Amino acid sequence: MAPGISNEKKTEDEQSSKENFIHLCNPHLEKMEEDILYHFALGTGTHDFPALFGDVKFVCVGGSPSRMKAFITYIAEELGLGSPGYEYPNICAGTDRYAMYKVGPVLSVSHGMGIPSISIMLHELIKLLHHAKCSNVTIIRIGTSGGIGLEPGSVVITRQSVDATFKPQFEQVILGKTVIRSTDLDEQLAKELMQCSKEINQFNTVIGSTMCTLDFYEGQGRLDGAICLYTEEEKLQYLKEAYDSGVRNIEMESSVFAAMCNLSGVKAAVVCVTLLNRLRGDQISSSHDILVEYQQRPQRLVGYFIKKRLGKV
Amino acid sequence: MAPGISNEKKTEDEQSSKENFIHLCNPHLEKMEEDILYHFALGTGTHDFPALFGDVKFVCVGGSPSRMKAFITYIAEELGLGSPGYEYPNICAGTDRYAMYKVGPVLSVSHGMGIPSISIMLHELIKLLHHAKCSNVTIIRIGTSGGIGLEPGSVVITRQSVDATFKPQFEQVILGKTVIRSTDLDEQLAKELMQCSKEINQFNTVIGSTMCTLDFYEGQGRLDGAICLYTEEEKLQYLKEAYDSGVRNIEMESSVFAAMCNLSGVKAAVVCVTLLNRLRGDQISSSHDILVEYQQRPQRLVGYFIKKRLGKV
Repeated sequence: MAPGISNEKKTEDEQSSKENFIHLCNPHLEKMEEDILYHFALGTGTHDFPALFGDVKFVCVGGSPSRMKAFITYIAEELGLGSPGYEYPNICAGTDRYAMYKVGPVLSVSHGMGIPSISIMLHELIKLLHHAKCSNVTIIRIGTSGGIGLEPGSVVITRQSVDATFKPQFEQVILGKTVIRSTDLDEQLAKELMQCSKEINQFNTVIGSTMCTLDFYEGQGRLDGAICLYTEEEKLQYLKEAYDSGVRNIEMESSVFAAMCNLSGVKAAVVCVTLLNRLRGDQISSSHDILVEYQQRPQRLVGYFIKKRLGKV
Repeated sequence: MAPGISNEKKTEDEQSSKENFIHLCNPHLEKMEEDILYHFALGTGTHDFPALFGDVKFVCVGGSPSRMKAFITYIAEELGLGSPGYEYPNICAGTDRYAMYKVGPVLSVSHGMGIPSISIMLHELIKLLHHAKCSNVTIIRIGTSGGIGLEPGSVVITRQSVDATFKPQFEQVILGKTVIRSTDLDEQLAKELMQCSKEINQFNTVIGSTMCTLDFYEGQGRLDGAICLYTEEEKLQYLKEAYDSGVRNIEMESSVFAAMCNLSGVKAAVVCVTLLNRLRGDQISSSHDILVEYQQRPQRLVGYFIKKRLGKV
């Protein structure tokens, strides 16, 4: 083999090995003897992270703890790893901040509502995956959202996460200074998920921009919060501008999720069901049963994706 | 009585009656036949709000659902309203977004972590209190925080909530435009709480500014997150600047809490214990038992305040 080719091969290997492990953008962590993941009630001094989490390849995150518990039961059955009636223990039982469940290569973690809440969880999750020496990890947020111009129950796979002024960026204040980070998500992964949705063919799915806001009421132009100082016309004008810029749904976590996964070199996707069409109203008034079925759609899509990745389809 | 005096008296009455009820800054709500408080799983069409909540005078809010459950049991005993071993039902049992408990005139509600999470809760709480026709309500956040220059376990009563650049304001994006709101808290209420702390004389309590950030790790200058691109010197410089501007603790909810209570005409206070001194470190490494005792301190202070207000001290 010519030396040139050999060198090229080596470079490719280095590149791929670099991409496969979690990248911690923090030189200070090396100096710490022990790392306490306070909001998980886990720590490197008290838990064997490689033994507990070393085989994790898929992390699914979502707002509600009970939804993430339901997901682990569902995915266990789908992967043929479940026993009927088995209650998966909450790995973060020492706290009520987040809930975490695991079966085989799948970790399911709740993140609460909003950018700050998911950001705390992601800092600790990324460190957990690093301490556990995980490789080739894919993280997918499976959530709920308000749709724009879509039938309720439609699923949106996020092309890019945009802020409340439709810019694809996440703005953050660090040591009193504003820092702007990219909210790009993995394009190939989004396409792969879209292909999965076509194969299961159970509900309408689109790829589009997702607007990420810091508030559910005024921040998303709702008329039904405790405070609202704008008119219905102004609200609709704003939502139509969002639609025209490519936004198909609104939620509250995707921007920091994309930004942090980007910086940590983890492939990430956002798959959210729309609970209502915001061009038609603000209140989530569908029946409990319909909402429960809607919330299962991202789980079914991502469940199929994981099965397919593991060659079980 | 001279007409002038009578008129003055009437104006005072009008003024005080105006101040006593919840002020909804939203003309659209009048037009709604039913109001679904989605994240509480409560609605005016399905629940009798005046019957359920009409007697509420004190609302205590905090991040953790289990802490807010512990608080209702504690306050029930303190007010002589409890029965030993009684399990208070979660009024929001239809959802796992928030937990809510009530005994007598006291409502205890969890709000999760961060500005967006408490903001959703407050929109629905303020509407709930309005629909229930509550009057003379005091809302107090009892939480945890990182201290600056204080012994761990100290309690901070917030004079004013400041942002990550030490400004006493809350910035919010509404329909794509930045809106700035005041974060003033009730001065008299803060002094009353300080007096209560002196009377119980159990732990160090100070009145100071509270910095409210959108992130726990980089946003608060921690060195132990998954991402950290600054030095220890830069971090300490920032925390010292915060201290010099009057900041005594850092948490993640006070600014929107103050802003929304202000706009709704509700008297509000923030009482947080400090779990560590951030000038000495970032990790919360005290033992579980010590942290549990620290977290009870705001509960004990606010419990005494409520007893005193009700003439039970």
